[in-house]
Amino acid sequence: MSVFTPVTPERLVHWLTRYSVGVLTELQPIAEGIENTNYFVATTQGRFVLTLFEKLGAGELSFYLGLMAHLARHGIPCPAPIADLSDNLLGNLNGKPAALVTRLPGRSLEQPSREQCAQLGALLARMHLAGRSYGAFLENPRGAKWCRATASQVRPFINPDCQRLLDEELRFQALYRFPDLPRGPVHADLFRDNTLFEAGGISGVIDFYFAGVDCWLFDVAVCANDWCLVDPARNRRLDTERTLALLGAYAEARAFTALERGAWPLMLRAAALRFWLSRLHDFHLPRAGELVRVHDPEHFRDVLALRAAADFAAPWPG
Amino acid sequence: MSVFTPVTPERLVHWLTRYSVGVLTELQPIAEGIENTNYFVATTQGRFVLTLFEKLGAGELSFYLGLMAHLARHGIPCPAPIADLSDNLLGNLNGKPAALVTRLPGRSLEQPSREQCAQLGALLARMHLAGRSYGAFLENPRGAKWCRATASQVRPFINPDCQRLLDEELRFQALYRFPDLPRGPVHADLFRDNTLFEAGGISGVIDFYFAGVDCWLFDVAVCANDWCLVDPARNRRLDTERTLALLGAYAEARAFTALERGAWPLMLRAAALRFWLSRLHDFHLPRAGELVRVHDPEHFRDVLALRAAADFAAPWPG
Repeated sequence: MSVFTPVTPERLVHWLTRYSVGVLTELQPIAEGIENTNYFVATTQGRFVLTLFEKLGAGELSFYLGLMAHLARHGIPCPAPIADLSDNLLGNLNGKPAALVTRLPGRSLEQPSREQCAQLGALLARMHLAGRSYGAFLENPRGAKWCRATASQVRPFINPDCQRLLDEELRFQALYRFPDLPRGPVHADLFRDNTLFEAGGISGVIDFYFAGVDCWLFDVAVCANDWCLVDPARNRRLDTERTLALLGAYAEARAFTALERGAWPLMLRAAALRFWLSRLHDFHLPRAGELVRVHDPEHFRDVLALRAAADFAAPWPG
Repeated sequence: MSVFTPVTPERLVHWLTRYSVGVLTELQPIAEGIENTNYFVATTQGRFVLTLFEKLGAGELSFYLGLMAHLARHGIPCPAPIADLSDNLLGNLNGKPAALVTRLPGRSLEQPSREQCAQLGALLARMHLAGRSYGAFLENPRGAKWCRATASQVRPFINPDCQRLLDEELRFQALYRFPDLPRGPVHADLFRDNTLFEAGGISGVIDFYFAGVDCWLFDVAVCANDWCLVDPARNRRLDTERTLALLGAYAEARAFTALERGAWPLMLRAAALRFWLSRLHDFHLPRAGELVRVHDPEHFRDVLALRAAADFAAPWPG
């Protein structure tokens, strides 16, 4: 259950008069949310998701909502924030920043096929290209600085083997910086459960609340580390066919640079480290009163160890 | 047939690389268009309508596309123009200004029910409220000035009875100006065939290429004169039930002012005159080489004569 701030139908009926979306017909809490309060909302005019933001500030939210509006305007199937009658995308409901976005059809997949990994790759490249003309800026909030700070916090809680892996990985990654990799707004969390499919095609990419500006290749690595595992439960090596499908379809929409080819194995490690750290943090330092569906940190420790061991052998097209 | 400027799949495949909408899968000419060239376009990412504008200029198109984008951003179910990778809504294809907009589901209705007229009224009011924050301006291109100019052009072609009706109506309407009626962007052509229904609800309002800034009540009158006739073929009086349903639902979303109540009968006549004149113009002065599906001007002559005769007896709620 993830409704931290309840909203009654009576309250919402009144709140919706600030919008031009019609009259409330349905209000249903969404159980899956982790960080925010989410409801499915239906009106006489359409289907929406209402989100009350429990922790994010106005600056970050302005970047996120603006990015979603920008991408939707470019035809990317992402939730489109609805502007209120004063033309603002961000409102306030029950004391929390709140937004109404379009609800997309479809369901996420547990076992994407080669073809579906290719669809994701193509869409990711189009998102990156569409995002270039977005004017706002927010540094990836889970970038290198966050990784170092979080590593210090979680280090005392993990065993010596894990400490060695963490120390060695931080040391190794600090050797590499990629100021010349192509950059722009990235989703940074486009796991399988944030991608909806309908009738065999991608019908939506959702949950932009970890987005920021970073290397585009980082976004690709986050996807590969979730979408392309041989078997997420038992063998977290990259499946060559699906990884090549993802990368090949991406490259058809936006060709990789030579620098990106060189950085790929390191980027897979950086993406694995970022999620290992956030899982460790959520596991060992849960925020008070928070109802987090804790993911097992071991999964990403294993992904990281495998990527570090495989090193430059990561699959790459051509 | 309304393809004035043909587009080949090969040409479009290339053109679509300027957008982030995926790869072309289907291209199908739309027969119904009158003023522009229209195609249904499907890609790996979605369904769109491609329009090549045969006559409209960049200033008008900027207003129209911006208005549609603004309304879509407010949750109004209208076609959303897709921005290209340079963030422009208006492009150029085969020498014509061109735009790609989302394709909406649904079909128009010939015989809307009382309930469907109410849905239209509510949506129209919400469109008006959402349009208030739209920053661009374009005077209604078919307003009073256009009516006077067009009347001079078509007058020589019509019989003495029609000339008397026309002269008298122009004289009468010149007595009334409504600077204090609430104004804003209006669709100005929201006939039944520009409104799509699906599963009993309005799924889209389309064809914004006669929009402009005018009295909101003018938009309501245009709708009533098409949606609420007792029988469009035989009795063009306003059906009281459906007219009251339209007005009542509109007023629930935006209350009419006292001035609007007073102006209603005159506005019905102004809306009838505008369409009688354009039908007369299309009938007697077709543009060379144009493939216009000519509407019978008699229909709107009759609507106008009936509204003038009914005068202040037009249905009004309460």
